[in-house]
Amino acid sequence: MIHRLSLAHPGGTTPIVVGAGALEATRAELETWCAGRTLFVVSSPRVRALHGAVLAPLGAAAARVVDLDVPDGEAAKTVAEVAELWHGLLAAGGKRDSRLITFGGGSVSDLGGFAAATFLRGIEFAALPTTLLAQVDAALGGKTGIDLPGAKNSVGAFHMPAFVVADTAWLSTLPRAELRAGLAEVIKVAFVLEPELFARLEREIAGLLDGDPHRLAPIVAAAAAAKAAVVERDPKEAGERRVLNFGHTLGHALEAAGLERGEPLAHGDAVGWGMRFALRLASPRGLPAEDSARLSELLDRLGLPPLPQFTPEELLAVLARDKKAVESGVRWVLPRRLGAWAAVEVAPDEVRAELVEFLAACQSH
Amino acid sequence: MIHRLSLAHPGGTTPIVVGAGALEATRAELETWCAGRTLFVVSSPRVRALHGAVLAPLGAAAARVVDLDVPDGEAAKTVAEVAELWHGLLAAGGKRDSRLITFGGGSVSDLGGFAAATFLRGIEFAALPTTLLAQVDAALGGKTGIDLPGAKNSVGAFHMPAFVVADTAWLSTLPRAELRAGLAEVIKVAFVLEPELFARLEREIAGLLDGDPHRLAPIVAAAAAAKAAVVERDPKEAGERRVLNFGHTLGHALEAAGLERGEPLAHGDAVGWGMRFALRLASPRGLPAEDSARLSELLDRLGLPPLPQFTPEELLAVLARDKKAVESGVRWVLPRRLGAWAAVEVAPDEVRAELVEFLAACQSH
Repeated sequence: MIHRLSLAHPGGTTPIVVGAGALEATRAELETWCAGRTLFVVSSPRVRALHGAVLAPLGAAAARVVDLDVPDGEAAKTVAEVAELWHGLLAAGGKRDSRLITFGGGSVSDLGGFAAATFLRGIEFAALPTTLLAQVDAALGGKTGIDLPGAKNSVGAFHMPAFVVADTAWLSTLPRAELRAGLAEVIKVAFVLEPELFARLEREIAGLLDGDPHRLAPIVAAAAAAKAAVVERDPKEAGERRVLNFGHTLGHALEAAGLERGEPLAHGDAVGWGMRFALRLASPRGLPAEDSARLSELLDRLGLPPLPQFTPEELLAVLARDKKAVESGVRWVLPRRLGAWAAVEVAPDEVRAELVEFLAACQSH
Repeated sequence: MIHRLSLAHPGGTTPIVVGAGALEATRAELETWCAGRTLFVVSSPRVRALHGAVLAPLGAAAARVVDLDVPDGEAAKTVAEVAELWHGLLAAGGKRDSRLITFGGGSVSDLGGFAAATFLRGIEFAALPTTLLAQVDAALGGKTGIDLPGAKNSVGAFHMPAFVVADTAWLSTLPRAELRAGLAEVIKVAFVLEPELFARLEREIAGLLDGDPHRLAPIVAAAAAAKAAVVERDPKEAGERRVLNFGHTLGHALEAAGLERGEPLAHGDAVGWGMRFALRLASPRGLPAEDSARLSELLDRLGLPPLPQFTPEELLAVLARDKKAVESGVRWVLPRRLGAWAAVEVAPDEVRAELVEFLAACQSH
């Protein structure tokens, strides 16, 4: 079954097509979109080798196809890589009406989307996310960007894709660790916004970790719909959209500190740990113990990998440059109960004290 | 006299304040805007030395001021310079609610504005243009960006400044060559959109080239108002805004080819030559000889510097990668008569033939 969502935004409406066979279901529209134009395909050699053949019909519809390779993973989101894309787009004669497809995980849509957002002040792109994390989160919502050393996504732009095609067939080649990391984002959105989806995850988590495309499709569609609804109401994160940062404040710090140490954490795993930490801040503010226990237990069943031996100081240093910070400090998205949340200022002393206990507890396992 | 315009756009309304004393007239608003925040001032050492003292009151209102230096001129609009700005913003603890001021010519607002557009996916900035060219053109309208080798403004973003303050007092230190280059842009907008302003330029051109701030103020205000009206109706250059590219198609090619050769042309001078070339394409399409003669004569009185010895081939090669090109070719903005224009496709053979004659004629002087 194919799920078709649509996300209205100031620049138009983005169709989001989800399911096993989503690409075939969208083929005619995509062919029209790139017909007679130069089509740039930004992907990694690995993704191209696994799934690249599925793009052949689009290539036939375009006037010509130019492949631009980027490395896999967060480490590719650098100034040097985006500069290489810009030069590649220019050298191949990219025009304002050229089209660009990102085909890969979240780092590919972040990096390729940022190149599309800024080349000639913006060309249209379509996101074809191939990982669970990208299908439920990274490729939706128009956030594109690159990292500066120690500061994830600190350079970027809001640039909505013209299409998002999340074909769950591509998930069948994902390693279990990537499914786990993607499911952490699904758990995130479910816990603060969608109690029914959360209950479904509690029932199905074991099977979902096996990567069956048909079982994953409705979960991806539900998570994408929840995110799209939030983005539609708040495209530039002026308010409500910050709910999507549940687990991300410490999560981003864990990712950045891991990169600095050469012990990178997957984004979803970092968010999983970040949610655990947020529970510590949320409990004294009224989160019912029962709800907290349900999230903890589901994360236990997800099986997060162990944390590197971070010190509180290195994480606090990274938190201090959080890009969502304002002059008055970092605001934390905390659950009030299953399905409800608030953005809360937490005093730095409390963050520090909880972090010391949290790291001691995590690392004693 | 202070002229206050306002430009409504999808993200809000930008006040544009023009005149001798415009900064003092806007001071209270700017102080409120940066009060209690980190204020980044992107400028060049030269501009800082000439006029930097005027920013002291703003610095006092901000929580702190961080100066970020960039070189003067188009050659500074590189990936390396914007990366340095990004790193500088991050290293100094820039936040989403930090403020940025660009203080300098058009290259400073292009480069600094692009850093503001993309740092943390966009922070607010105010443009304080110090050259005539920037006051009437570059700093208005939200186009920001950098160059790739041989392709001006080929990377960038639309990011409207929160304020534009064009204090014509700053023009008193401008060399005559910079006044000339700025007046070329004023002539451009006047010829295709504002016949009364054009007639005024015909009367006053000699005095304006002397740089009197009070004489320049109403001219800057009229040119800025004409541009702002166009931008307001078409913020992202979907249609009407392309009128502002009159003289820019060949103009950009001249600039790019000049840079490649190490014989850079000022943007306004290149636009002046570009308008002369556009007259050649416009005349056989019905532009009255009388109107064409008036523009030629005014450009004569402006006194453009001689063109480098370009070959037709090198200019045609640059035209082929014009960023406004679409797959079907470059469209030229051509005057139909004084105060009216059209965007026209011109066959490549005709462009080539006219270019050969044009270069021969220009270079025989």
